[in-house]
Amino acid sequence: MKRLAVGMDIGGTFTKLVAVSAAGRLLAQAQVPTEPASGVNAFISRVSDAVRSLERPLGRKADAVGIGVAGDVDADGGRLRFAPNLKEFEGFPLRDAFSRGLKRPACMHNDANTAAWGGYVVEFKRGVENMAAITMGTGIGGGLVLGRRLFLGSTGSAGEIGHMRIIPGGARCGCGGRGCLEAYAGRHAIVRAVKRLLAQEPRRRSVLRSCSGRIEPCDAAEAAAAGDPLARDVWAMVGRAMGLGISNLVMLLNLDAVILVGGVSRAGPLFIGEIQKSLRRNPFRTPCRHVRVRLGRTSHLGALGAGLLSLEG
Amino acid sequence: MKRLAVGMDIGGTFTKLVAVSAAGRLLAQAQVPTEPASGVNAFISRVSDAVRSLERPLGRKADAVGIGVAGDVDADGGRLRFAPNLKEFEGFPLRDAFSRGLKRPACMHNDANTAAWGGYVVEFKRGVENMAAITMGTGIGGGLVLGRRLFLGSTGSAGEIGHMRIIPGGARCGCGGRGCLEAYAGRHAIVRAVKRLLAQEPRRRSVLRSCSGRIEPCDAAEAAAAGDPLARDVWAMVGRAMGLGISNLVMLLNLDAVILVGGVSRAGPLFIGEIQKSLRRNPFRTPCRHVRVRLGRTSHLGALGAGLLSLEG
Repeated sequence: MKRLAVGMDIGGTFTKLVAVSAAGRLLAQAQVPTEPASGVNAFISRVSDAVRSLERPLGRKADAVGIGVAGDVDADGGRLRFAPNLKEFEGFPLRDAFSRGLKRPACMHNDANTAAWGGYVVEFKRGVENMAAITMGTGIGGGLVLGRRLFLGSTGSAGEIGHMRIIPGGARCGCGGRGCLEAYAGRHAIVRAVKRLLAQEPRRRSVLRSCSGRIEPCDAAEAAAAGDPLARDVWAMVGRAMGLGISNLVMLLNLDAVILVGGVSRAGPLFIGEIQKSLRRNPFRTPCRHVRVRLGRTSHLGALGAGLLSLEG
Repeated sequence: MKRLAVGMDIGGTFTKLVAVSAAGRLLAQAQVPTEPASGVNAFISRVSDAVRSLERPLGRKADAVGIGVAGDVDADGGRLRFAPNLKEFEGFPLRDAFSRGLKRPACMHNDANTAAWGGYVVEFKRGVENMAAITMGTGIGGGLVLGRRLFLGSTGSAGEIGHMRIIPGGARCGCGGRGCLEAYAGRHAIVRAVKRLLAQEPRRRSVLRSCSGRIEPCDAAEAAAAGDPLARDVWAMVGRAMGLGISNLVMLLNLDAVILVGGVSRAGPLFIGEIQKSLRRNPFRTPCRHVRVRLGRTSHLGALGAGLLSLEG
């Protein structure tokens, strides 16, 4: 019988669940509130119930459970080391609790790592050797598949693409550093750039003036898609920053592919051109022309990849 | 009988040869002029003679030959794709010519990659899982050992650490780009920085004024070691640039170790402190405190690593 996994993607607000075949086919999905404040035991019991409900219509139990979670994950120990949005779960042996409760093997990884694995299997059908996934949302995360294996680094912290410094002494980042990629292409950076341009150029027309105060990246994307020049400038900044980061990534790792995923990547058509331009202009033609940069086309890559990782040897 | 290899490091001026045991012990060494202008066949015959002379006192033939060469190497095809200082050898099937002539298996890699492997086996005794070697000379090169294997990337171009951009729109680099690490820490950058400071601050005393015109990094190193403040400023710049590059490397790859090799790294005690400072200040403590940055202690790492790679499965 073909193997089947459950994958989950634990975020600060919602936990997404999928049932996935070994080939990467999405068979079922569900979502439960994470509610970290209600405590880790309540969370585990709520999610375990959801796993069983997900399996019932499939008529069988999944062989393994994979967990993706936003934060610094100790993959060997199956614990969250550090997670600003899931403080209540830090240090708890989450992987083993799920494994024991659901009576099957489990694995746990950072959500950008599981998204990278999801991209590798589901989007690229394992047809590339070296790739990166960049998760674009509140933060900019990254996962690496090198030599057809998930690359975790020496303490499981590899792939912090969002905190590579692209402009020394530049914009302040949420991490406490300056000039990180995230400080130019993360959600807060985008909102800040809109506000700054609106304030710096008070006579410049922009539909974004009407929603000033609580602008989201999706507003800036809508405005830019409708031709708003100020909004287009903001996405050009995002594209230049991503172009710098991705060029550095490619110079170092000579990848086959980079896939952009996460909420902000939905605005990808507004900035992927700048990334391509940056790669085309790079004097190192062999690696920079070889790499394909594309937008993710699949929902739930983080959860799918988590499930798929739990089936790996 | 224990396995034995010959390794060579082909530079624009000299080709270094070593005989090396599988454990990484240097058994013999030699050097011949490369003289690319005399043609590739004359080069191969000159080096092959030197290999036989190297083996004679050892009383046996090496099992395999490893070649490290400065340039973009097609490791699969055993050819140099691009080599500014060895134009005459570009495209020639160098690996197979040596293999046929010397009647044993051969492999060929970029010299920074062979130095990384040399560092991994000889300096770290295979005791790390993930590491980088940064070669500091006229250019800044790099090699990566990831998951205890040499990482070549998808077209064999991985490890171009010197051409990661650390300052967008910054100093012009020999590659044609701007703001590359090499444009701040390569030989030319160091010489340029000395000249710039001497010109900008004509009243500032410096022993380097006496050798103005044809300054080399070793002059700046000697002056700094003797306490010359202007020379110390130059090395602080090198250290800050290397700190930025290495921090980015560590954020992405979460390495156990980074080793600095090559001529300019001999001035390492003058700038390694800046690199450590940059890592200590990085908010991502787990990867940045985990990594050890150190100066190479072994001569001929490029040739040793080439030989050792030829013994790998």
